[in-house]
Amino acid sequence: VSVELLPVEGLPEIVPGDDLADVLTPSLRAAGARDDDVVVVTQKIVSKAEGRVVPEEGEGRRAWVERETVRVVARRGDLVIAETRHGFVCANAGVDASNVEDGFLTLLPEDPDDSAERLRSGLEQRLGLRLAVVITDTFGRAWRRGLVNVAIGCAGLPSLVDLRGKTDHAGRVLEATIVALADEIAAASGLVMAKASRVPVAIVRGVVADGEPLPAHELVRPPEEDLFRRGAVED
Amino acid sequence: VSVELLPVEGLPEIVPGDDLADVLTPSLRAAGARDDDVVVVTQKIVSKAEGRVVPEEGEGRRAWVERETVRVVARRGDLVIAETRHGFVCANAGVDASNVEDGFLTLLPEDPDDSAERLRSGLEQRLGLRLAVVITDTFGRAWRRGLVNVAIGCAGLPSLVDLRGKTDHAGRVLEATIVALADEIAAASGLVMAKASRVPVAIVRGVVADGEPLPAHELVRPPEEDLFRRGAVED
Repeated sequence: VSVELLPVEGLPEIVPGDDLADVLTPSLRAAGARDDDVVVVTQKIVSKAEGRVVPEEGEGRRAWVERETVRVVARRGDLVIAETRHGFVCANAGVDASNVEDGFLTLLPEDPDDSAERLRSGLEQRLGLRLAVVITDTFGRAWRRGLVNVAIGCAGLPSLVDLRGKTDHAGRVLEATIVALADEIAAASGLVMAKASRVPVAIVRGVVADGEPLPAHELVRPPEEDLFRRGAVED
Repeated sequence: VSVELLPVEGLPEIVPGDDLADVLTPSLRAAGARDDDVVVVTQKIVSKAEGRVVPEEGEGRRAWVERETVRVVARRGDLVIAETRHGFVCANAGVDASNVEDGFLTLLPEDPDDSAERLRSGLEQRLGLRLAVVITDTFGRAWRRGLVNVAIGCAGLPSLVDLRGKTDHAGRVLEATIVALADEIAAASGLVMAKASRVPVAIVRGVVADGEPLPAHELVRPPEEDLFRRGAVED
């Protein structure tokens, strides 16, 4: 009944064109991966493998942020909180300069759910195991300081688990209890892959995930449910 | 280097006036609590022990929500997203009808950081262990569907960990990387205490928490940094 979070160490530097499943297989085998493990990987290594790395010079960071933005949600000075084409709302539309060579930026994967599914099936094939995959990024939050990892891609498990209709221990039907399972897994993985210690992959073992697989795309709140479409915009 | 999440089972029903440290001690001992464990407890059992349980009749739920609200952040029909006196922004200002007797509501603890500190020192005394405590509640988020646990109280560990000045593996100084450690722990605990299974306490073991203890109050984004002071208000 317990859950274990295991860092996966000893990975080589990921470069554009790498087949992530190939590169991760030896380390996951060494880490003792098992059936039903959730393999959590950071956006950064997925973006690198997929060639979503661009030079900061020329276009410049601001131009890349604009290209990755479909809607500015809030802005203060240089800080832009933007909606990406995936529907994620985050700083700089996910354009990021950390953990990449000087002078380069990473962009979010084109389709992180698809990236997760390809990695999942590639790892299953190579390791002969039944696995799930969550791709994480580090987002800020409205109203709360500090960053946490959230899921931007998910394969092989339900990103959301609907407890509605279940009862609490008093027998009362739970209201509106839809748990963001993939975000719980992503946040938990942050406990073993702190950004400064070069651990872009973790195993989360023991997750109970009832229900059909559901991609991370389902975590995006549709505009008609969104009470926070627009924040402050100050130049 | 791994982190373990352990549900703490076999707890009795908590009632107003209970000394939480007394009530939790046998179960934590049975669960094999150790030095440096983080004991995670839900808001619900803290509120119950502290008598923050009110009858729904008479005042009615809406009246309690109003009393617990210092500022309405967004509203649609019956759904109110409100700021509490602690500065937390959440649905119904934390007034909740689940996992409590029919006809009753729980309110958030008066001072959850103080509740966490009292529980921490009470448990340390009884168990003879060095412990941290995180009190969680289940919040919705702007822009993302589904609920995750966040920290509303924290004692014995830093709720925020400042990685600024540290370098990433390319030697580049990490920008703006303040990790919400207590929220990571809270979200992780959700993996072992799904709301329907009556596990209001978990142990998180193996957390690396450099730095001085910092209460959960520090997780509240100050108004001057908050770009999402006001959402949609629709009746």
